[in-house]
Amino acid sequence: MQVAIAAFPRMTALDAIGPYEVLQRIPALDLVFVGERRGEVRTENGFLGLTVDAAYDEVPSPDVVVVPGGIGTRSLLDGGPLVDWVRATYPGTRFTTSVCTGSLVLAAAGLLNGLAATTHWGAVDKLAELGAKPVHRRVIEHLDQRLVIAAGVSSGIDMALRLAELLVDTTAAKAAQTLIEYDPEPPFDAGHPSKVDAAVMARVEEYRAVRA
Amino acid sequence: MQVAIAAFPRMTALDAIGPYEVLQRIPALDLVFVGERRGEVRTENGFLGLTVDAAYDEVPSPDVVVVPGGIGTRSLLDGGPLVDWVRATYPGTRFTTSVCTGSLVLAAAGLLNGLAATTHWGAVDKLAELGAKPVHRRVIEHLDQRLVIAAGVSSGIDMALRLAELLVDTTAAKAAQTLIEYDPEPPFDAGHPSKVDAAVMARVEEYRAVRA
Repeated sequence: MQVAIAAFPRMTALDAIGPYEVLQRIPALDLVFVGERRGEVRTENGFLGLTVDAAYDEVPSPDVVVVPGGIGTRSLLDGGPLVDWVRATYPGTRFTTSVCTGSLVLAAAGLLNGLAATTHWGAVDKLAELGAKPVHRRVIEHLDQRLVIAAGVSSGIDMALRLAELLVDTTAAKAAQTLIEYDPEPPFDAGHPSKVDAAVMARVEEYRAVRA
Repeated sequence: MQVAIAAFPRMTALDAIGPYEVLQRIPALDLVFVGERRGEVRTENGFLGLTVDAAYDEVPSPDVVVVPGGIGTRSLLDGGPLVDWVRATYPGTRFTTSVCTGSLVLAAAGLLNGLAATTHWGAVDKLAELGAKPVHRRVIEHLDQRLVIAAGVSSGIDMALRLAELLVDTTAAKAAQTLIEYDPEPPFDAGHPSKVDAAVMARVEEYRAVRA
């Protein structure tokens, strides 16, 4: 089974690597990073380079598509190679999935019209604009439509565990979880704007402004 | 402040990218991936290439060192460029840190002699052999020794949030957590061998054998 993870300039690394690390544990799955062209892409602030091993047209019929998010999605929503590839591959996939603002790409490809969907908390309005119905949940699945959609960044790990269960079985998903020792103990309860105070949100906005 | 993340062939991607994603959110921190030589390294099963942007000798005095783990650590423990660099940079770092079997590298560099430490659950015996005292905890810190050590793979996210607090302040750590929406909801409670049944452990061993 081929799992194709999209990669593009200014993507968020963990959006892709969370699902990657879960799914690559399962020998039945072959993973490939696909992009506009082979070669390196730089993630959000340029500190990290990831390799694209295949161009979109070299991966025309993956079993699973994973679309990560990041600042880089902004320039991709008016159409172009990624949106075209997501639209073209969708009918043949077992699951088309997204993490973070990757769901905006799915929406731009016309896959989320009128459907409940999630994204990074900072992109909820944009998701609605693109025709989906934003819901605050960590993972949303539409099994009839073969879509699994995760919220911001780290939620891709939770999404991928469920995806492993759907693709293989519950034992495979649990084995992957054991292997990556995913028994989270966040030192703070600060994983969403609804959980933090104004001082933290001021810092969040300060950090976002630097990176925009 | 410079944060140097080691990269080497057959490393585990999430060991590095978990801390990367937390720390790169904080504008005060500059991150760099360092390795034996500039250029691409392939993570465990070869599905993913990451770029090394600086050789170890180009980063002689980082403020923070992060050593990820992975199958690739096995060939590094008898000494060589990574162990030498960890040993040489340690006196000047604010914190030397590890994720997963990265702690074996710290131990091989002589930093963990007689100290409580953690690692991936599958490498506990090896950690003891190298002179540390294995303890089953997700994150262990020795502030007097400026060491912060995480357990397997995904625990690097928890470790990095604590590190952000130590390096900047609690608000910075919480802001990073909000930004990466780290509000985990694992679909299963299977994050450690102590939490799963024999059927899952049989699958774990099957998957490990394929990758070894």
